[in-house]
Amino acid sequence: MNPPRSVVLPVSSSSRHFQLILEYEGTDFQGWQIQPRGRTVQGVLQEVARAVFKQPVKIIAAGRTDRGVHALGQVAHFAVATRMSAGAVQSAFNAYLPDDVVVRDVREVSSRFHARYSAKAKVYRYTLLTQQWPRPRCRRFVWHYPHAVDVDRLRRAARVLVGEQDFRSFQSVDPARPERSRDTVRHVYRVDVWRQEACVHIEVEADGFLYKMMRAMVGTLLEVGRDDDPHKAMRRVLEARDRCRAGPTAPAQGLTLMRVLY
Amino acid sequence: MNPPRSVVLPVSSSSRHFQLILEYEGTDFQGWQIQPRGRTVQGVLQEVARAVFKQPVKIIAAGRTDRGVHALGQVAHFAVATRMSAGAVQSAFNAYLPDDVVVRDVREVSSRFHARYSAKAKVYRYTLLTQQWPRPRCRRFVWHYPHAVDVDRLRRAARVLVGEQDFRSFQSVDPARPERSRDTVRHVYRVDVWRQEACVHIEVEADGFLYKMMRAMVGTLLEVGRDDDPHKAMRRVLEARDRCRAGPTAPAQGLTLMRVLY
Repeated sequence: MNPPRSVVLPVSSSSRHFQLILEYEGTDFQGWQIQPRGRTVQGVLQEVARAVFKQPVKIIAAGRTDRGVHALGQVAHFAVATRMSAGAVQSAFNAYLPDDVVVRDVREVSSRFHARYSAKAKVYRYTLLTQQWPRPRCRRFVWHYPHAVDVDRLRRAARVLVGEQDFRSFQSVDPARPERSRDTVRHVYRVDVWRQEACVHIEVEADGFLYKMMRAMVGTLLEVGRDDDPHKAMRRVLEARDRCRAGPTAPAQGLTLMRVLY
Repeated sequence: MNPPRSVVLPVSSSSRHFQLILEYEGTDFQGWQIQPRGRTVQGVLQEVARAVFKQPVKIIAAGRTDRGVHALGQVAHFAVATRMSAGAVQSAFNAYLPDDVVVRDVREVSSRFHARYSAKAKVYRYTLLTQQWPRPRCRRFVWHYPHAVDVDRLRRAARVLVGEQDFRSFQSVDPARPERSRDTVRHVYRVDVWRQEACVHIEVEADGFLYKMMRAMVGTLLEVGRDDDPHKAMRRVLEARDRCRAGPTAPAQGLTLMRVLY
C-alpha cells in the first residue's frame, strides 16, 4: 500500500550531510556555542534548521567563536534526513535567518566530513583602528587603538610565533572548560601584519587556536612592539609558557574568522 | 578691581565661529534636522555643545540628510563665545558624542562662513549590493539589490543627468515643507557609476540636491538601465518634469554624504 501523498519520505533512511559557509556579525551574539541563556549563532541556526527540516538538527562549527567575534568564512556541518538540494537548503536558511547571519554557500558532503576535526587550518584576522578618533562606520569591526603602531616592529616580533611550538603563554582559562588544554602545542603557519589607511591588520593562520590565543597574541604584539628588541621580548614571552608574561587580551570586536582550510 | 579667578571671560564679547567635519552612521537617527520627537544628529550635537560651552548653540549643516542617511564628510558651523581652541573643541565634542557620530575635524572660520549657503557643491554616494545574498557586515550601508546591474548601461543613462537642468522629475514632496521648491534647476557636475566586487557605487556631485533627488536618481537609473535605450529613457524622464515619470526612491541606508566643497 502506498503511503498518503502528504507524507514526504527521505531518499533513504540514512541522513545526508551538508557543509555551510557562514558570515556573521558577532556584535549581538554571545558567541557561537549554544547556551542556556543568551542569543548564540549555533542557537539561531539550529532554530532555523528545525523550522526548515521539521526536525531537530545539531550544527557543528569549525571554530567556536567567542562573544562579539565575527566571521566571514565560518564553516559548519550537519546531518539531516531531507530531499532538499543544497541550493534549496541555502535559500530556506537565508529566508529565515536574521540579518546578522547569512549562509554564503551550502554543499553536500560525505559523512566523513567534520567541520572541526577535518579542518587543516583556520585564518583569523584582527583589525586595529590606529587614528586618534573613532570611525562610526567601522566601529563594530575594529578595536580603536589611538596609538602609533610600528608595523615593522610588529612583524619582527611576529616572526617568533611562526612554527610548531608550545603556545601555553597565549592560552586563557575557558570558563566553560576550566581544565586547560594539556596539549598546548600548535602550528602557526604564518602571521601577516599590514597597514591599510588608518587600520592595521594582523592575520594568523594556524592548525588550531587555544582559548583566546589570537587575542592574546595581538595584545602581546602591541606590547612587545614598544620594547627595545621586539623579537627578543616576544621570544621571552613564548618561552615562559606562562599566560601572565603575555600581553592583555585584545577586545573581541576587532576579531574575524576569515576562513577554514580543509 | 579684578574679577574673581573662577570667572572665565570670553576673549571678546563677539562670538567665534567654528566649522565641523562630521562622520555619522544614520541608522539610528531620524535624520539631521532637530524634531520635537526622535533622535537627530543636530539634536545630539546641540546637546553636546550645550554641555561643552554651558550655553545653547545652534548648529547648521551643509545638507539636511534624511532619516537613515549616513555621512562621511558632513560640514556644519556654529557661533559661540568661548576661549577654547579648535583642537580643544574637537576633543570635548568627541568625549561627549555617542559612538555613531564623530567630529573628524574642527577649524575656526570667519563669521561670513555658512555651512549651507557657502557650499559650492556636495557629493553623495549610493551603494548597491548586487549579489544574491545579503552581507551582515555591510548591511547598514548598502541597499541589497540582488539583480544583474549593467554598469555601462547605467553610465549611458547617467550622462543625461549632467549639466544645469530642471530636475523637477526627481523632486519628492518634503512633508516638513509641503510647498515644493519652485526653483528646481540644479547643476549636476558629474555622475560616476562603478563596480567594486559585489557592490555598484553611484556618485553624484552637484551644486545642490532637491528633496530625495539623489535617491530618485538611483531608482530611475536602475529602471531605465533595463530599457532598450537607457539614454533615451532617461531623457524622457528628465524632460517630463513630473515625479511620476521617474523611478522609485531608493532606500536611505545605501546613501552617504561624502563631502561638501566650498
